[in-house]
Amino acid sequence: MPEMARAQDAPLTADQTRNTAQAIAELKDRFGERCATSAALREQHGHTTTWLKNQPPDAVVFAESTEEVAETVRLCAARKVPVIPFGTGSSLEGHVNAPFGGVSLDLSRMNSVLEVHAEDLDCRVEAGVTRKQLNSHLRDTGLFFPIDPGADASLGGMAATRASGTNAVRYGTMKDAVLALTVVTADGRIIRTGGRAKKSSAGYDLTRLFVGSEGTLGVITELTLRLHGQPEAISGGVCPFPDVNSACKAVISTIQMGIPVARIELLDALQVRACNTYSKLDLAETPTLFLEFHGSEAGVREQSEMFSQIAEEFGGGPFNWATVAEERTKLWTARHDAYWAGKTLKPEAQIMVTDVCVPISRLAECVSETVEDIAREGFLAPIVGHVGDGNFHVQILVDLDKPEEIRRTEAFVERLALRAIEMDGTCTGEHGVGQGKRKYLRREHGDALEVMGAIKQALDPGNIMNPGKILPQS
Amino acid sequence: MPEMARAQDAPLTADQTRNTAQAIAELKDRFGERCATSAALREQHGHTTTWLKNQPPDAVVFAESTEEVAETVRLCAARKVPVIPFGTGSSLEGHVNAPFGGVSLDLSRMNSVLEVHAEDLDCRVEAGVTRKQLNSHLRDTGLFFPIDPGADASLGGMAATRASGTNAVRYGTMKDAVLALTVVTADGRIIRTGGRAKKSSAGYDLTRLFVGSEGTLGVITELTLRLHGQPEAISGGVCPFPDVNSACKAVISTIQMGIPVARIELLDALQVRACNTYSKLDLAETPTLFLEFHGSEAGVREQSEMFSQIAEEFGGGPFNWATVAEERTKLWTARHDAYWAGKTLKPEAQIMVTDVCVPISRLAECVSETVEDIAREGFLAPIVGHVGDGNFHVQILVDLDKPEEIRRTEAFVERLALRAIEMDGTCTGEHGVGQGKRKYLRREHGDALEVMGAIKQALDPGNIMNPGKILPQS
Repeated sequence: MPEMARAQDAPLTADQTRNTAQAIAELKDRFGERCATSAALREQHGHTTTWLKNQPPDAVVFAESTEEVAETVRLCAARKVPVIPFGTGSSLEGHVNAPFGGVSLDLSRMNSVLEVHAEDLDCRVEAGVTRKQLNSHLRDTGLFFPIDPGADASLGGMAATRASGTNAVRYGTMKDAVLALTVVTADGRIIRTGGRAKKSSAGYDLTRLFVGSEGTLGVITELTLRLHGQPEAISGGVCPFPDVNSACKAVISTIQMGIPVARIELLDALQVRACNTYSKLDLAETPTLFLEFHGSEAGVREQSEMFSQIAEEFGGGPFNWATVAEERTKLWTARHDAYWAGKTLKPEAQIMVTDVCVPISRLAECVSETVEDIAREGFLAPIVGHVGDGNFHVQILVDLDKPEEIRRTEAFVERLALRAIEMDGTCTGEHGVGQGKRKYLRREHGDALEVMGAIKQALDPGNIMNPGKILPQS
Repeated sequence: MPEMARAQDAPLTADQTRNTAQAIAELKDRFGERCATSAALREQHGHTTTWLKNQPPDAVVFAESTEEVAETVRLCAARKVPVIPFGTGSSLEGHVNAPFGGVSLDLSRMNSVLEVHAEDLDCRVEAGVTRKQLNSHLRDTGLFFPIDPGADASLGGMAATRASGTNAVRYGTMKDAVLALTVVTADGRIIRTGGRAKKSSAGYDLTRLFVGSEGTLGVITELTLRLHGQPEAISGGVCPFPDVNSACKAVISTIQMGIPVARIELLDALQVRACNTYSKLDLAETPTLFLEFHGSEAGVREQSEMFSQIAEEFGGGPFNWATVAEERTKLWTARHDAYWAGKTLKPEAQIMVTDVCVPISRLAECVSETVEDIAREGFLAPIVGHVGDGNFHVQILVDLDKPEEIRRTEAFVERLALRAIEMDGTCTGEHGVGQGKRKYLRREHGDALEVMGAIKQALDPGNIMNPGKILPQS
């Protein structure tokens, strides 16, 4: 058995320990060096981009095909050893931790783009392909894959967590982008869900059941994804507002007017300050919207002008928009680096990042109450958000050496989650449940949680697929 | 027990017969005249708009609230009596038939629009509200509900069958339109799935599991639906083509160019002839596309002009487009009356209607092969289709008194379903599985069918929810 101490939720029984050791021995037999147990690799496959404690798996298997994934799952299933799918490890709620030990199934070597059907605006990829890799591959086709959660996540992981990001307001989330999946089920069978037709009424929507199931129902090994034509023209820019409330109101109005904005992101004053420093911008340090419009030349001009008027109506502006690619790239790079920029505000701290999503009519209220909460607590906590969807993130800079600070941060995160749920929203718009948000699901879903539990029990009766995630009882 | 002979798949056992009689007695006690057993009402609640034989339920309960639905289900569950949800009865694959007897749960009296959140572009309705009723209700809000399957179906039924229709190419299907559901599960519990946030990553996507489950997992009693702003401008018109193949190629090109067409419908020459007669049009009797564009004044002009050029490129045109509402209404009424128009081609015949959907790159091929098949068989069988999605319908005019004609029709429908599946498509784009298409699901889904079966077993262990639908083994 590996020598590193586990930080598990409960100590394993002697039986479990023996089973795990046997499974790893068999996996080493089968996969040789592709079944690794070094402390460094194991720790790297526990969760690293969050405040949750690292709970490393007992071994890491680097699979190279769907058949190898199926073999690994069958072998683990036979010994009731947990299987934790791993893409790039950029998830934020402890999704890849191993609270009951087990085998991390690393899919990063399954990184082939298998087919591009330019005529049908779709493609088929292995689960380890990252979104940036796919977009590089597509560069000469005139097509692109729009979903952009910030991190260069694997597409399998993005499907598993129902990821979205800046473009979702226009192009939807992974639930909309995935047409079909290849999945290895908990008993090691390989199934295909969905198909390449743009729509179907032929039976239960298994595709959307696996999207967002965070590896708890099976391992996604291949995806058929919907693509989009690169827009003929893009315009974008930044628009300052006197306060968060007026910025949110301008967003609400933009959405209600039906302006097909491609991106509309809020950065609060603190976040703008951090980005100015980190990304060498010179924006006014006030709540600011970053926007992007996609369409024809005439279309993006029309949209930009309509937005300008709305901004003015709510005391914002001037809206400086440009169609120059370099300028836009600089802005969006800064937006994507917001996480790292935030970190510079208090370099010794960790970032505790959380997200919620509310109906857009409640956005201004939810953000404003949260801003007041942050002020009351005296937190250093920039806000950024995909506000066109009613979704925003708070990044609280926490000193993990101070238990009292952790306690207050956790209490704040709980208040935020419950505030969103009270407003008919959700405790997570795009980060997922993982370990961190399991405790809010009862409040959000009530008895529907029993139905989720029945599905989990039916598809994974041994509870080996990423146990300790999503369902409070798993 | 009711006196009418059953046309069931298998005769009931004495136990089942007794249980059903007891359940109906209890339902009559509880609901009085709202539990009906007259032959006429029962037959009306078996399937009527298809060639499948009518299999009436043993009783019909007219529920007036979610709580009443739950009571009815609990009472039926206690005696293992089937429950068949009923909206308007406009489904096409035998969804409301009662092959094992039981209780038809008629939701048509649950027809209140409960809430409209104009700011959030959503509303909450009871399941018996029809799409036209909802749009009448919304008329003064500047909003509309786009999904339009032709029939004035109930929204609960549309969700249950994952309906779509002419506007889906732009606005998506019921899978995209439903934000949240209230569902009565097979054990009579009331759950709420989803929420009003525009996106969420909080757990399994139960909403999309129930959408398209055709009443086999529970009864949908309320829906929260996404609405859209009425477009500032609409243009539309018809465009003739020399043959079906060139019309399909123009459609493919339109979609690939990213023109955000709101409707793009194909009528073959025979269908145009039928519509000319029935709806008093004077179109050239050649394959024709009906189109509609939504957007700003400038936008719809731009889209219409781009399409004109594409049509010309493929030998089609002239594309006469207009923004006059009356003219458009006349055309779209004719399109919606295509079913009735088809019937006039052979008034003594029944219409056997079927649909398939393929990736758009295969559309021309699939339609052309189907046209040849129709010619070989000598069928009178007009084709209409939501071709922007790769989805088309064939309406075969069948003389139900001629067993040989029925047999040949069934063989044709099977060839069409398998042809679509072979082309990476689906045996049904929007009509659903019901009874009629169960036999194709193994071919389409392979082992994924076992996963569907496991879910059915987990959520409805007694198999009382609409048995004999979707799953071959149910």
